Amino acid sequence: MADDKKLTTRAEDFSAWYNEVVLRAELADYSPVKGSMVIRPNGYGIWERMQRALDDKFKATGHVNAYFPLLIPESFMHKEAQHVEGFAPECAVVTHGGGKKLEEPLYIRPTSETIIYHMFAKWVQSYRDLPILMNQWANVVRWEMRTRLFLRTLEFLWQEGHTAHATHDEAEAEAKMILGQYRDFMENWMAMPVVTGLKSESEKFAGALRTYCLEAMMQDNKALQAGTSHNLGQNFAKAFELKFQAESGEIEHAWNTSWGVSTRMVGGLIMTHGDDNGLVTPPKLAPIEVVIVPIWKTDDERAKMVEAANKLKAELTGWSGRGEDRLRVHVDARDGMRSGAKYYEWELRGIPLRLELGPKDLEKQSVFSARRDTRVKAAIPMEGVAPAVAQLLASIQADLFTAAKARRDAATHRGDITYDRFKEIMEGPGGFVYAGWNGDPAVEAQVKEETKATIRCIPDEEFRSPNAPKTCMVTGQPAKYEVVWAKAY
Amino acid sequence: MADDKKLTTRAEDFSAWYNEVVLRAELADYSPVKGSMVIRPNGYGIWERMQRALDDKFKATGHVNAYFPLLIPESFMHKEAQHVEGFAPECAVVTHGGGKKLEEPLYIRPTSETIIYHMFAKWVQSYRDLPILMNQWANVVRWEMRTRLFLRTLEFLWQEGHTAHATHDEAEAEAKMILGQYRDFMENWMAMPVVTGLKSESEKFAGALRTYCLEAMMQDNKALQAGTSHNLGQNFAKAFELKFQAESGEIEHAWNTSWGVSTRMVGGLIMTHGDDNGLVTPPKLAPIEVVIVPIWKTDDERAKMVEAANKLKAELTGWSGRGEDRLRVHVDARDGMRSGAKYYEWELRGIPLRLELGPKDLEKQSVFSARRDTRVKAAIPMEGVAPAVAQLLASIQADLFTAAKARRDAATHRGDITYDRFKEIMEGPGGFVYAGWNGDPAVEAQVKEETKATIRCIPDEEFRSPNAPKTCMVTGQPAKYEVVWAKAY
Repeated sequence: MADDKKLTTRAEDFSAWYNEVVLRAELADYSPVKGSMVIRPNGYGIWERMQRALDDKFKATGHVNAYFPLLIPESFMHKEAQHVEGFAPECAVVTHGGGKKLEEPLYIRPTSETIIYHMFAKWVQSYRDLPILMNQWANVVRWEMRTRLFLRTLEFLWQEGHTAHATHDEAEAEAKMILGQYRDFMENWMAMPVVTGLKSESEKFAGALRTYCLEAMMQDNKALQAGTSHNLGQNFAKAFELKFQAESGEIEHAWNTSWGVSTRMVGGLIMTHGDDNGLVTPPKLAPIEVVIVPIWKTDDERAKMVEAANKLKAELTGWSGRGEDRLRVHVDARDGMRSGAKYYEWELRGIPLRLELGPKDLEKQSVFSARRDTRVKAAIPMEGVAPAVAQLLASIQADLFTAAKARRDAATHRGDITYDRFKEIMEGPGGFVYAGWNGDPAVEAQVKEETKATIRCIPDEEFRSPNAPKTCMVTGQPAKYEVVWAKAY
Repeated sequence: MADDKKLTTRAEDFSAWYNEVVLRAELADYSPVKGSMVIRPNGYGIWERMQRALDDKFKATGHVNAYFPLLIPESFMHKEAQHVEGFAPECAVVTHGGGKKLEEPLYIRPTSETIIYHMFAKWVQSYRDLPILMNQWANVVRWEMRTRLFLRTLEFLWQEGHTAHATHDEAEAEAKMILGQYRDFMENWMAMPVVTGLKSESEKFAGALRTYCLEAMMQDNKALQAGTSHNLGQNFAKAFELKFQAESGEIEHAWNTSWGVSTRMVGGLIMTHGDDNGLVTPPKLAPIEVVIVPIWKTDDERAKMVEAANKLKAELTGWSGRGEDRLRVHVDARDGMRSGAKYYEWELRGIPLRLELGPKDLEKQSVFSARRDTRVKAAIPMEGVAPAVAQLLASIQADLFTAAKARRDAATHRGDITYDRFKEIMEGPGGFVYAGWNGDPAVEAQVKEETKATIRCIPDEEFRSPNAPKTCMVTGQPAKYEVVWAKAY
């Protein structure tokens, strides 16, 4: 149970604050296997809502779900040269099964390109069998050395989409379409602004032609890569003989995409909206949007107030003004616990809206509301309470996005920034720096070595500066791209 | 794609029929790792609907979802003596991670009692923290030698519920309540009749006090254990020091239950309802309930009929007579494919209801329907088509259950059956035999050895024979229980 001890503040120690929020809001816990985490019901409830929203988007855009095996033969991992180099070192390896040593070791999937394109090759003969648009919800394992709850764990949950197309352009359009779906989800469900763009060659997925990504800024001004969408070209199709007879009669290799987001997003949500009182959940992803706390002094009063709270809940959940998406309401009628302690707990857990209902409120036929985000309090008349609550929740959702965007923009640096100034920023407050880059990987490596900042992406057009720098920040040579630099999780 | 070749019939070779249905209806496929399967979208769609229905039931009865790690330290598996004996031999073992040999090997979870009760012990201090009612949707690995698609695979998907209670009686009530939820799901969603009861000591879960189970009969008269619910007593609580301070102030060990159903149920669905034309899906679990096949001869006619089919689909899906549970309808407007080939394919895939819409039907303002289960065909007037279709689907759902129950009852043997007659039944047609048993494990082992039949359960009261045998079928001694014998998957 949550105790009343204050959290470490974000300003004191952002990293300690984050861990305390995760543990004390009971979102997750450490497990006995180093680097693995347990996702507790409060955290899993957010993930379930994320899954539902994303799954609806995938299905609405023509994708179907399937499930591919956890264990992958070692030889499969070695078929695509860049892929094995990128992933094999961080794999967990099964060497024994059923009491015997295996003839060929099996890798726990770090991602499923190899096994999925092997299967696609079995299923595809003709252009008529294309496109294949599949997704799976699955666990993957990557042997990470430095782990953080939700952000980087040995095992994590995610979805991985895998598609096969007849042409490069179709695959490219798919990879970008999915990027748009992710962006819509992150902005409109997570209330988390993102910069979309292309990864540099050194940061792209092992085996991809091009990697698109979504980069969010956390409250410590560090970047979080929140999702990626890859145009894999024909790399895996060639490695796994994924071929088809084209309309022309020619045998061609298919073009693949893969794309994924994970439980890491829960960490992103916490670090985007949380405050010194704990978690703040955007209403659309909150398993409970509204908690009603009835207030009483005597036992008689208790019975009456709990009844009134339940009646209020029934009115809110019965309201159909949001269609099938009914209000998600909980009544906290626990006895033997002070109201203040309840408020504290629900604030820590990030419930978007609290309604307090005492005898005087009931007399006045109103209820007292407290927003989690702004902590603004106001009475709401009982008459029309459901649409008023829904309106408040919609405002909270919108305001969270606006506030997060304002924070990001305030920590975003554009214009002609010298490399010295850049170093100051990265050593100091951090943030996103838009700067010119000559496109040379050696320069990229040098900056990373000297400042720990990395190129988060070559931003998509709408994010670029109106007057993009014409020269490379480091070399002064003509800039090939404007890129976004930041330290990252 | 499905070809027109006839399936092996159930009468010819039930096992071959089953595999052909799974592969040709594209429910699943073999994977390159022996014993692992790929669940293809047609099969996964059924599993998704199973998940949704069960998840709703778990939540309605107060359970929350969480997620625990895939990898379990070897030492954990050894803490409960019966458990390690039952499961360790069939585990997959990770010995290397991140390029290094691990100090302690990790087992891929065959089930999660050990790690979950370890975590519960961390979270529970007082009786106020009880009960804990949790569930997880997860993959597990058991090293099986003889595998069958869906029925027995190296890796499978399931849910595992885990609860902790203050008393034996509460745990017992939970285990039985869940058995009831499973039964409701199997009867009313899967349309699969089940016998519920208690496992004998030799058949119970490794580490349980008591195992309750649901046994269904497949069309080859073999039993399928479709789900289990265990009262674990205090065995795991003692092994993992899951203790709490009772209201009395005493420190006591908690009482646990665990319960699970898996993708095996998809196999049960196939073998319960499938026929010589392929899969038959109960409407409630069908991702597509109705397929509309527009019929045309000329291109002009095609445009008109596809438009009419889409209009019909809109009318069906727009109908709100089932509330939020809208009709799930697909229009098959594929060009260059004969209607007969389409019918064949949708029958193979088990779509409950087909609607054929040709120019003459349109003229008569009706549509021609063909039930998948009984293959009965009838015209339905366009006026009021949606409620008529919903009514037909409800009839299909009910009739599938009635037919399956009639088949099971026809292959169920009760009364005073001699052991010789029993052997004849088990060597011949098979089925469920209700017989007296003196309770001696040696007798149970002898029958298994001699006939391959096992005690499926000591049936719950409502399934017992009105005149239960008073003597043990094998020894002639007084019967301690009436039990259900069958050969099983």
